[in-house]
Amino acid sequence: MFNNITIVGVGLISGSFALAMKKHGFVKNVIGVSRTKASEIKALELGLIDEALPLEEAIKKSDLIYVAIPVDATVPIMQQIMDALADNQIVVDAGSTKFVLCEAIKNHPKRKQFVATHPMWGTEYSGPEAAVHNAFAGRACVICDKEKSDKNIVAKVEKIYTTLGMNLVYMEAAAHDMHAAYVSHISHITSFALANTVLEKEKEEDAIFQLAGGGFESTVRLAKSNPAMWAPIFMQNRENVLDVLNEHISQLRKFKSALEKENMEFLNELMQNANKIKRIIK
Amino acid sequence: MFNNITIVGVGLISGSFALAMKKHGFVKNVIGVSRTKASEIKALELGLIDEALPLEEAIKKSDLIYVAIPVDATVPIMQQIMDALADNQIVVDAGSTKFVLCEAIKNHPKRKQFVATHPMWGTEYSGPEAAVHNAFAGRACVICDKEKSDKNIVAKVEKIYTTLGMNLVYMEAAAHDMHAAYVSHISHITSFALANTVLEKEKEEDAIFQLAGGGFESTVRLAKSNPAMWAPIFMQNRENVLDVLNEHISQLRKFKSALEKENMEFLNELMQNANKIKRIIK
Repeated sequence: MFNNITIVGVGLISGSFALAMKKHGFVKNVIGVSRTKASEIKALELGLIDEALPLEEAIKKSDLIYVAIPVDATVPIMQQIMDALADNQIVVDAGSTKFVLCEAIKNHPKRKQFVATHPMWGTEYSGPEAAVHNAFAGRACVICDKEKSDKNIVAKVEKIYTTLGMNLVYMEAAAHDMHAAYVSHISHITSFALANTVLEKEKEEDAIFQLAGGGFESTVRLAKSNPAMWAPIFMQNRENVLDVLNEHISQLRKFKSALEKENMEFLNELMQNANKIKRIIK
Repeated sequence: MFNNITIVGVGLISGSFALAMKKHGFVKNVIGVSRTKASEIKALELGLIDEALPLEEAIKKSDLIYVAIPVDATVPIMQQIMDALADNQIVVDAGSTKFVLCEAIKNHPKRKQFVATHPMWGTEYSGPEAAVHNAFAGRACVICDKEKSDKNIVAKVEKIYTTLGMNLVYMEAAAHDMHAAYVSHISHITSFALANTVLEKEKEEDAIFQLAGGGFESTVRLAKSNPAMWAPIFMQNRENVLDVLNEHISQLRKFKSALEKENMEFLNELMQNANKIKRIIK
């Protein structure tokens, strides 16, 4: 489908995207753009990319440019990419926040060549080594403000994501950020905070190491995530994140109150309500 | 090794224990004791037990009695079992709290025939249907107040758990409860509270269903756990749980403050500290 694509950032998402694009025959040549030489070399070694180029040269050669870097860096680089865009080129981003970016470029003359997407897949790892084969499958991919992009371009992007096995969901950028705060961003904050809690309270690291079972590991797993990626997400989406974080603190205070008052009935009620999540998450 | 063992409770832990005991040739006949006829029938159907008997009859026939029921029910039933114990019989419990139980039976004349254990394995499911083959392997099993049990009996129990693939850890009951609050109980509370948070904020259940990725699922998984099991654990261990819950709320408030003040440096610092959990959890 494409002769050349560029991935901007050569990490978990972009690297896995490049692997999947190759596997499904969507592209012949993948160009990598990275801030660091070390990442370029690693991405070449791992076969995520075929060549590494500076951004400007990469743009010139590419049919599609896929941006997956920290969301604060996405805004200025997207401006730069769109300014350099020829008529037939496509730009897609994969960031976890959408409103700030979509606002920033909403009046750009090349706006129709851009598709705002959020493939809701990831792991707690980052960098080229984190890229894996067969990523994305079975997960949701949100496409935002679809009507602001060219129809044929959107169709191509939809074709890519559905071929990768993703379920397409359409939202406005602002709605996306609100929902993402609820079902993704807050999970990361609770996990980071849980790790800090345990590191603060449990001075015997041996005990954590020896005793931690599957439950602890699954709730704390996201605390290994990269701050350079997540700090800008939380900051760009701070109003939604604060809203849900306040609610979360108030829910924890209910548990605290039930325990302080030894109110077994209230404690049971809180947990029975939480059990309703079974309806939604299998 | 044993002709007959009794499992008191026929659920996730006891059922998985019975399956493992059979598999490893530790026992010929497994007797199940349950409060409900339905669970007995299910456990027989699933082959977890060979026969179902009332507690008193079961005790009389058994070489070893394994108690895995909600921790508030364990205390009175353990008293009853120990009162009925003949000299050659062994009792083991598998509860998630240890101090209240060990205190309650510390002066019992049969104390030496009891071994307080906590195999730190589990899933968010409960009941006979939740029992699985090859459970326990690779996890820690805490044996508490070892010196209060008969040496030969402890050796037999150690043999069982190590054959099941568990790593033995020795602690006093009070220390166990403190560490368990840090590495297990708090994870469950945060998960229950996170489910309540999302159910409260996200009125569009479709959005949760569509968007929830692996991160959300892993942090909220424990919220499916059985309140009848967890309420008594939290209540018996309330001082430790409150201590760590207070710390957790204060850690979340730090994230809140960093976001409110748009303090990127503090936000990064909090997450970098949380990343230290990598040292401990692979």
